[in-house]
Amino acid sequence: MPEGRVTAVPDDGLSTRERRNRPLLIVHTGEMKGKSTAAFGLALRGWHQGWSIGVFQFVKSAKWKVGEEAAFRALGRLHAQTGEGGPVEWHKMGEGWSWARKRGTEDDHAAQAVEGWREIRRRIEARTHQLYVLDEFTYPLKWGWIDPAEVVEALTRREGHQHVVITGRDAPAALVEAADLVMETTKVKHPMDAGQKGQRGIEW
Amino acid sequence: MPEGRVTAVPDDGLSTRERRNRPLLIVHTGEMKGKSTAAFGLALRGWHQGWSIGVFQFVKSAKWKVGEEAAFRALGRLHAQTGEGGPVEWHKMGEGWSWARKRGTEDDHAAQAVEGWREIRRRIEARTHQLYVLDEFTYPLKWGWIDPAEVVEALTRREGHQHVVITGRDAPAALVEAADLVMETTKVKHPMDAGQKGQRGIEW
Repeated sequence: MPEGRVTAVPDDGLSTRERRNRPLLIVHTGEMKGKSTAAFGLALRGWHQGWSIGVFQFVKSAKWKVGEEAAFRALGRLHAQTGEGGPVEWHKMGEGWSWARKRGTEDDHAAQAVEGWREIRRRIEARTHQLYVLDEFTYPLKWGWIDPAEVVEALTRREGHQHVVITGRDAPAALVEAADLVMETTKVKHPMDAGQKGQRGIEW
Repeated sequence: MPEGRVTAVPDDGLSTRERRNRPLLIVHTGEMKGKSTAAFGLALRGWHQGWSIGVFQFVKSAKWKVGEEAAFRALGRLHAQTGEGGPVEWHKMGEGWSWARKRGTEDDHAAQAVEGWREIRRRIEARTHQLYVLDEFTYPLKWGWIDPAEVVEALTRREGHQHVVITGRDAPAALVEAADLVMETTKVKHPMDAGQKGQRGIEW
């Protein structure tokens, strides 16, 4: 179903076409499951449009998101082979970023997160991707490893047609303020409340 | 990040392993974008597990979800060719269900929705898929085309390892009551509030 209607016509000097194609800064936050899965579901749309998709996972565990990673790597290979969809790059902090010269160690997560953000900023300046998924990126912001003001500044002055989706709990106020679209997931009911543990295919 | 911890140990006579692998009835409801995208993101995990994925779209417009459909059809073809992931079936009501003998017309949406539900019920009884995505299925329930009590009865007595995800606004109370996991999307901010229209790669 269509998700709402335009409720105001802005006085920004843009044509409808320009406004329609304005790249978005999207934040998926909230306490409940669905933030990352919704970002990857959105990335399927971008893939189908032929966009270059860049995923940057700011997580430690190798177990999380393996399903999404496998599927997107498969879609990226399919693009390389047949031209269908768009190219996909998938980078994760857990084992040390793939572009970094040395592997990460257990005790330099803050440094790794900063290195990840610097690479993202370089790519945004170079207009490398059309869609960036910064998965769990709110955590290094929340923990003070990366300055939210610097992120907001870099993202709001980005040029070209680059959409950015950031996921994670407790999105900083400055990021919410700067975003075009902010979705919050809320728990109505969760199986863990009934004593059920996470399971294959659902949690990862 | 892990989404919560077990907060209670149930007295249901099941082992942790049995409880862990209990198939879930999941509902994604709420007013904001993200319900369907999160369901499709979840389906990527199931695909990676090698599950048979059955998607049933209870929508009219051919424009919606074309990106997700193209990506999942590609993943299904990849499975057929290489064995990676699981098989995917994608059925939509818009043009008349693919298994139906005649194409739908504009004025029999209620009959089409009932036909879709009957096929899903048959498949659940036959244990056809491991994951069913019933996209926008809350609407035929809300509009009285399909009886929620019948749906809840069929879903709660399903056997085998069959997960079901239902998306759409205004999930009926009986469905929420019966579900294991209910996620609600909430709008914090939406570009349409600022006069921006939907766009390619984001809305579809």
